[in-house]
Amino acid sequence: MKSEICTSDADTIRVRGLDLTTEILGKLDIGQMAFLEIWGRVPTPQEDIVFNSLVVALVEHGLVPSVLAARLTFLGAPDSFQAAVASGLCGLGSVFVGSIEGSAKILQEGIQRIDQGLSIDAYVTEIVGSFKADKRAIPGLGHPIHKEADPRTKKLLAIAAENGFSGRHVELLHALVREAERVNARHLPINVSGAIGAIASELGLDWRVSRGIGLIARTIGLVAHLLEELRNPMARELWLRTEKEAQAGDHS
Amino acid sequence: MKSEICTSDADTIRVRGLDLTTEILGKLDIGQMAFLEIWGRVPTPQEDIVFNSLVVALVEHGLVPSVLAARLTFLGAPDSFQAAVASGLCGLGSVFVGSIEGSAKILQEGIQRIDQGLSIDAYVTEIVGSFKADKRAIPGLGHPIHKEADPRTKKLLAIAAENGFSGRHVELLHALVREAERVNARHLPINVSGAIGAIASELGLDWRVSRGIGLIARTIGLVAHLLEELRNPMARELWLRTEKEAQAGDHS
Amino acid sequence: MKSEICTSDADTIRVRGLDLTTEILGKLDIGQMAFLEIWGRVPTPQEDIVFNSLVVALVEHGLVPSVLAARLTFLGAPDSFQAAVASGLCGLGSVFVGSIEGSAKILQEGIQRIDQGLSIDAYVTEIVGSFKADKRAIPGLGHPIHKEADPRTKKLLAIAAENGFSGRHVELLHALVREAERVNARHLPINVSGAIGAIASELGLDWRVSRGIGLIARTIGLVAHLLEELRNPMARELWLRTEKEAQAGDHS
Amino acid sequence: MKSEICTSDADTIRVRGLDLTTEILGKLDIGQMAFLEIWGRVPTPQEDIVFNSLVVALVEHGLVPSVLAARLTFLGAPDSFQAAVASGLCGLGSVFVGSIEGSAKILQEGIQRIDQGLSIDAYVTEIVGSFKADKRAIPGLGHPIHKEADPRTKKLLAIAAENGFSGRHVELLHALVREAERVNARHLPINVSGAIGAIASELGLDWRVSRGIGLIARTIGLVAHLLEELRNPMARELWLRTEKEAQAGDHS
Repeated sequence: MKSEICTSDADTIRVRGLDLTTEILGKLDIGQMAFLEIWGRVPTPQEDIVFNSLVVALVEHGLVPSVLAARLTFLGAPDSFQAAVASGLCGLGSVFVGSIEGSAKILQEGIQRIDQGLSIDAYVTEIVGSFKADKRAIPGLGHPIHKEADPRTKKLLAIAAENGFSGRHVELLHALVREAERVNARHLPINVSGAIGAIASELGLDWRVSRGIGLIARTIGLVAHLLEELRNPMARELWLRTEKEAQAGDHS
Repeated sequence: MKSEICTSDADTIRVRGLDLTTEILGKLDIGQMAFLEIWGRVPTPQEDIVFNSLVVALVEHGLVPSVLAARLTFLGAPDSFQAAVASGLCGLGSVFVGSIEGSAKILQEGIQRIDQGLSIDAYVTEIVGSFKADKRAIPGLGHPIHKEADPRTKKLLAIAAENGFSGRHVELLHALVREAERVNARHLPINVSGAIGAIASELGLDWRVSRGIGLIARTIGLVAHLLEELRNPMARELWLRTEKEAQAGDHS
Repeated sequence: MKSEICTSDADTIRVRGLDLTTEILGKLDIGQMAFLEIWGRVPTPQEDIVFNSLVVALVEHGLVPSVLAARLTFLGAPDSFQAAVASGLCGLGSVFVGSIEGSAKILQEGIQRIDQGLSIDAYVTEIVGSFKADKRAIPGLGHPIHKEADPRTKKLLAIAAENGFSGRHVELLHALVREAERVNARHLPINVSGAIGAIASELGLDWRVSRGIGLIARTIGLVAHLLEELRNPMARELWLRTEKEAQAGDHS
Repeated sequence: MKSEICTSDADTIRVRGLDLTTEILGKLDIGQMAFLEIWGRVPTPQEDIVFNSLVVALVEHGLVPSVLAARLTFLGAPDSFQAAVASGLCGLGSVFVGSIEGSAKILQEGIQRIDQGLSIDAYVTEIVGSFKADKRAIPGLGHPIHKEADPRTKKLLAIAAENGFSGRHVELLHALVREAERVNARHLPINVSGAIGAIASELGLDWRVSRGIGLIARTIGLVAHLLEELRNPMARELWLRTEKEAQAGDHS
C-alpha cells in the first residue's frame, strides 16, 4: 500500500513534493492547490484559468434537489453539519452533476477509438444510435430549463479556446451534437455538464473522477445554502407543507 | 420560503446579484466565487488571500480516516463516485476537521460575552475550567502527531496578521492557550483547526458553518485520493489484511 | 485488531458463534438476528417482543424531512439507491430519531450516579435545571405534533411492562417528566424517542449506539418511500415548486 | 404530491391502513412490519419466512469494506452516529450488496421478455454473451472467497422452495448459471446476491429497490460493529498503520 500524494512527520507536511508551510501556504490559491493535489503538479497559467472556470460554473444553480436534501438533513441533524453536506452530495448522480462523467467518458473513449483508426463519423453514429436504442438521453446534451442554450456553455467553451484547450475532445463533442440533432430532428444544446466533460478531458482528467469537479463546486454551494438555512430557514416549512398536502384526503 | 443566493431563468443565472456568464466566469476564481457565494459579496484582496490560505491548509493531510473511508466505499461502489466522497465527508466530525467549529464557537461566544462586560481572563478561566471538569480536550489546542507545533498554524496566523486579520479572536485564542497551558502544566500547541477557527472568526464567518471550510478543502483532497485509488489501489488490500488479522484464532 | 462478531472461511460463516447456514437461516427472524448481532446472544422471548416493538414503532412516521431528503437524492442519483438511503439517514441527528440517544444517556448516567448514592430527586432536579439554563428541550419529552400524548409511547411502555422491562430506567424517566412539568408548568408528554430511550436502557443497550434502533427502523421506511417515489414520484414537483416560489420577485 | 404509506394526526398514526398503536405494535414483528411497509400488506406465513431469511442472510459478513468505512467515520465523528452508518451504506454499490439489483434486473427483465415470446435459451445466451463482450462479471454469479459454493445460497434456495417461492425467476437463474459455466468453461457458484435477487423477484419486489434488502440488513450489522468499535476499537490502529506503511520511504 503506497500513496504518492502526501508525506508528513512531526515537523513537515509535503503535498506532491512541495512543503505545505513554505512552498504552498500563501503562494498557491485554492484552484492551484486543487490542481496540484489532483494532477500532481502546479498548473500553467492557462490550465489555471480553465480549471477555475469549470469549478466556478458549477458552484451554484439555485434550489436544486441536492440543496433541498442538504437543508432538510440539517433540520434533523443541526449537530452534524458535515452529514448535511454529505447528504446533498449523495444526489449528484447520473441525472445532474454526474452527467459530466457520462460526457467525459464518451469523449475520452471516443478519442481512444479514433486513435485506433475509427472515424469520428462512425463513432458519433454509433453513440447516438446506441443511446437512441436504449431510449436514454446522451449525457451533456439538452437541459430541462435552458432549452435554447445553457448560458454557461458558450462562455466556458470560449475560455477554454482562448487558453488553448479547445482540442479534439471539444471537436468530438460538436460532432456528437450535430449527429444527435440530425437523428432526433431537434435542437439539442450542449449543457454545462457536456462542456465541462469536454474541457476536463482536454485538461487530461480521467473521466472516472471528472464528477469530482462538480463535487468540489457543489460543496461550496452547499455550505452557503446551509448558512442561509440557519439565518432564513425553509426546510421546516417545506416539510410541513409537503406532509399536509400529501396526506390530504387520507384522514377520512 | 425565500433564497437570496441565486436566481435563474431560461437565459440567465445570477449569483448574489452577479451574472454568472458575464460577470463571474473567467473573472472570479474559485476562492473569490466561494467567498461571494458564502459571504454574499466579492472579497477584498486581503480577505481573498486569507480565505484561500484557510482552505488550502486543509486540502491534504495524508491517509487520514476520512480518506480511507472514501477509498473503501469506492471499492464497493465504483459506480457512485459521489457516494465515496460523501462517505469520506461524513467522518469530518468533532474529532478532526469539525474541531474548527468548536474553536470558532468558543472564540465568537467569548467576544460576545466580553463585549457584554466580561474580562478576557474571566472568560478563558471559565472555558478551561469547564473543559477540564468534563475531561474534554479544548478544540483547537494540541495534536496527536504535531506535539511541538503544527507547522501550518504559525504560517496561517502570519498570513492573517499580514493582511489585517489578527484581531480580537486571535488575541482571545492566545489568551486561551496561556490559561490552558498554565492549568494543565504542559505545552499545548494551537493546531490547524484552532488557527482556522480563529481566522475564520476574524473573517466574520458564523461558527455554525465554519466546519464548511474543512469540507470544501477535503472534498478536493478526496477527489485526488480516489483518482489515486483508481490508478494504484489500496482499499482491497486494506480490507483483506484487516479481515485476516481480526479473525485470526477464531476459526478453531 | 480483533472482531468478535463474525468468522468466515471458504465453507462457513459463523455469527456470534452460530453457524449462519445451519443454525441461523430459517431459524432466527430479523429481530432475533439483530439482537444476536448487537447483544451477542439470542434474545429471550420477552426481550424479543420488546426489542421488536422498539424498531417497529420507528419504521414509519410520514413524509418527515429524512424521507424527503432521500426522495430528492434519488431524483438526482437513481443509479445510487444506497446513496439515497444514506442521504436520508444523515438527517437522523439530534432533533429527530437521534433524541433516543439523548434520552438514553440521561437515564443511563442517572442510574449510574444513583447507584453511587445520589437521590432520584437530586438527579432529576439537576437535569431539568441544566437544560432550562441552556434553554434546551430535554430529549424524550414533548412533540411538535402530538402535543397531548404520543400514541406510541403508552403502548410501548405497556409492552415493556408486560414483559418485565419496566424497571429503574422507566421509573427515572417518569420522575424526570414530573420534575420537568413542575418546573415548566406545562404538560410534557413522553415522546416515542423518550420511551424508546428508556426501554432500550432496560434492555441494556449502551446509549451511545441507541440511535441505531432508529437507523434500522428508518432504513426500512426509506426503502418503502423510494419504491413509492419510483411509482408515484413527488421529488421533481417538490423541487420545481420550491425553486419557483423561493426565487419569485428576484428576477426583476 | 401524494403518499399512500402513512397518515398521521395528533392522535393516530396509520401505516398502510393499519393503526400503529392498536393494530401494529406488539402484533407485527420487524419482518412483518417491513413487509407491510414495502409491499403494502401483511405477509402470508410463507412470505414472512422467506423475506426474513433474505434479510437475515445479509446482516453480517465480517470486516467488509463498508464496515471498515463506518468504523473509520465513527473515529472522526463519534458525535454523528447516523453519519457513520450512512458512510458504511454508501459503499453498498455495484460490487457488493448492490449486485442483488443487477441479478434481480436480469431475471425480471428476462421473465418479461420470455412472456413476450423469447425462449429461455435465447435470453440466457444473449445475457452471457453481452457480459462476456463487455468483460464484466454477471451479477449474482461467482464469489471472491467462496469459490466452490456460497454456503448461504443453497440454504436460501431451499427455504424459498419449501415455502413455494422457487418459481420462474429461480429457474431462469439456474439456466443462466448453466450457460455462463458452459461459455466460461468453469464452475460459477450462485452467490448470495444472486440467490437473493432471484428470491426477491419471486416475492414480487421491483429490482430497482431490491438493493434495499441489503441496506436493511447491513444497517443492523453496522450498528453492531460500531458498538464493538466503542468497546474494542480498531479504526485508530488501522489508520495509523496504513499511514505509516503507505508513506514509508517518502520521507527521504
